[in-house]
Amino acid sequence: MSGKTFTALGLAAAAAAFWSQKPAIQTVECEAPPKKDEKKKSIKTAEDDKKRKLEGLTPDSPMRLRMEAFNKQLQAEITARLEKLDGVGKFKVDSWNRVEGGDGISMVMQDGKVFEKAGVGVSVVYGMLPPAAVAQMRAQHPNIAATKESMPFFATGISCVIHPHNPNAPTVHFNYRYFELGSEDGGEPVSWWFGGGCDLTPTILYEEDAVHFHRVIKEACDKHDPRYYRDFKKWCDEYFYIPHRNERRGVGGIFFDDLDDKKPDELFAFVQTCGKAFLDQYVPIMERRKDMPFSDADKHWQQIRRGRYVEFNLVYDRGTKFGLLTPGARIESILMTMPLTARWEYMHEPDLKAHAKLMETLRVPREWIPL
Amino acid sequence: MSGKTFTALGLAAAAAAFWSQKPAIQTVECEAPPKKDEKKKSIKTAEDDKKRKLEGLTPDSPMRLRMEAFNKQLQAEITARLEKLDGVGKFKVDSWNRVEGGDGISMVMQDGKVFEKAGVGVSVVYGMLPPAAVAQMRAQHPNIAATKESMPFFATGISCVIHPHNPNAPTVHFNYRYFELGSEDGGEPVSWWFGGGCDLTPTILYEEDAVHFHRVIKEACDKHDPRYYRDFKKWCDEYFYIPHRNERRGVGGIFFDDLDDKKPDELFAFVQTCGKAFLDQYVPIMERRKDMPFSDADKHWQQIRRGRYVEFNLVYDRGTKFGLLTPGARIESILMTMPLTARWEYMHEPDLKAHAKLMETLRVPREWIPL
Repeated sequence: MSGKTFTALGLAAAAAAFWSQKPAIQTVECEAPPKKDEKKKSIKTAEDDKKRKLEGLTPDSPMRLRMEAFNKQLQAEITARLEKLDGVGKFKVDSWNRVEGGDGISMVMQDGKVFEKAGVGVSVVYGMLPPAAVAQMRAQHPNIAATKESMPFFATGISCVIHPHNPNAPTVHFNYRYFELGSEDGGEPVSWWFGGGCDLTPTILYEEDAVHFHRVIKEACDKHDPRYYRDFKKWCDEYFYIPHRNERRGVGGIFFDDLDDKKPDELFAFVQTCGKAFLDQYVPIMERRKDMPFSDADKHWQQIRRGRYVEFNLVYDRGTKFGLLTPGARIESILMTMPLTARWEYMHEPDLKAHAKLMETLRVPREWIPL
Repeated sequence: MSGKTFTALGLAAAAAAFWSQKPAIQTVECEAPPKKDEKKKSIKTAEDDKKRKLEGLTPDSPMRLRMEAFNKQLQAEITARLEKLDGVGKFKVDSWNRVEGGDGISMVMQDGKVFEKAGVGVSVVYGMLPPAAVAQMRAQHPNIAATKESMPFFATGISCVIHPHNPNAPTVHFNYRYFELGSEDGGEPVSWWFGGGCDLTPTILYEEDAVHFHRVIKEACDKHDPRYYRDFKKWCDEYFYIPHRNERRGVGGIFFDDLDDKKPDELFAFVQTCGKAFLDQYVPIMERRKDMPFSDADKHWQQIRRGRYVEFNLVYDRGTKFGLLTPGARIESILMTMPLTARWEYMHEPDLKAHAKLMETLRVPREWIPL
């Protein structure tokens, strides 16, 4: 029996102390059952937008419609390019509509030649936000007036997670989104913002891949604001952190949220540049990694790292968590980000130098390109 | 493109609305850095108990010491029996000590002949509970006086999760624990309670296994209180529920908490009967399932079910969640409950009748034995 002094809390038992208490996770209700007149209002905005779409979008169309159109176009481009890269696998397409307004398209490739699992989803939601949620948003967006009423909101986002078969090829994620808190009369939004980001999760660290991934997104950022890359790279390192492992889930990228400090069109242009940069960030890396030889040990290490990805997604990722806690959510769309397979071993330590090298980088984030 | 009308919330985008907000999970701090004199007090109780243990336990010894001794004895018995059942696999033993008082033993078998992964852990914790946590406990235990001070606490528990290789053989879990909120002067505890339970998680449903598992624990319950099985079976069905899947994680068993409505010795006797019943609950099932033939489809289905086990553990299980959120926790002991491997497929549906049969039972809990 190995004896080890452990200053940390012996948890299994201490946890017992809390099992009698309420769970630490609280259900965030996004949509309280709407009052009848609220529901009508919500549908009206969505109905008006339907008409606008039929008439055709122009640069003067509401931002929400332009962002939605951009997301859907980007989804089509990316999935087409990924299918070409895979050569065999095809995306399964599921589309759905919301009664209250909005729709979505989930596209998932499973067990392709190159990709173990790849999901690209777009969603568009019109709904009513309960007062508690509105109040929470005021913290970041002080222009939102205090209210005891629900408010109409709109959200559209594109999100993508790709897990390749080859352990030399990294997992990748990106997500870009636009949110609007609507005015009561359906006119200009009370508040709006953009959010998003991208990050790379290697199983085996190739520094040149991390550098390439960061360089492309830095160039995208630099076209719009010289501070963006520096600030959003740091934010990304903070966001994709797994406290209970004291490691980041990968080599980072960028992450930003609540972005509303420039004109909507300027920020939309930034988000478009980022979204369009994705294939340039990822495809060249895949081209050089997808057919590399690998060992059983590499594949085994990949499965352990997949386990960490699951831990981050289920325990910390705000989008996933919010989805899981929302009654009636489309669970398959939320969990399409999960790897096909994952592995947990007790007290596992990387046994190859190449694997251990990754861990150093996950513990202390690096600057991949000169700032 | 398949078109489906979806009344549920299109989450990926609605979630975006919340990514700018604080995470729904809040860190529950179990141990605020203790003030110096508090730390001394905490160590004193632990030190006193060390002496008591050296002098030898009697039926008059404090309950915390008797429960600790029981847990450690039970852990030794169960792991010995499981090793015998496996025939090849051995438990790796890790023991650790806490500076503030307490210790623990984690025993894990991995890749045995019968067991894919089996963990049996005991932990003993002396610590100080911050006022916020004390206040939370008053909800269930009104005899706890309102206080703005930290209070000494003690917790000991045994927990066990076993994942066999053979998909015909079910995963099993049990946990029994005792908690004490200490008096300031180290005398009789201000409040104390027992908690625990057991549940069975089949991959392929054999009704006779579920009946056997429930019958043995019902007999254990019936020796102590005719209401226990009925009440705790119901509680178990409620606790091991995965809302985002609308399914339970298995065929249940019992679950109870905050149990303090009889004399400590009576409840300790009950918990002992339950703990000792475990091998009778599980070993006969394993004897008849461990060598059964199975198909690739069965193994595949097992991996999908393992994924659900991971979802429950990481998203809902209070013990795991509390552990993950506690700074400095021994992560390997908390996550030894995870299966060795798991799988997530987009839109997976069971393709064999035998697999679909399980799902009906997970959606609508059954009464396995007449009440």
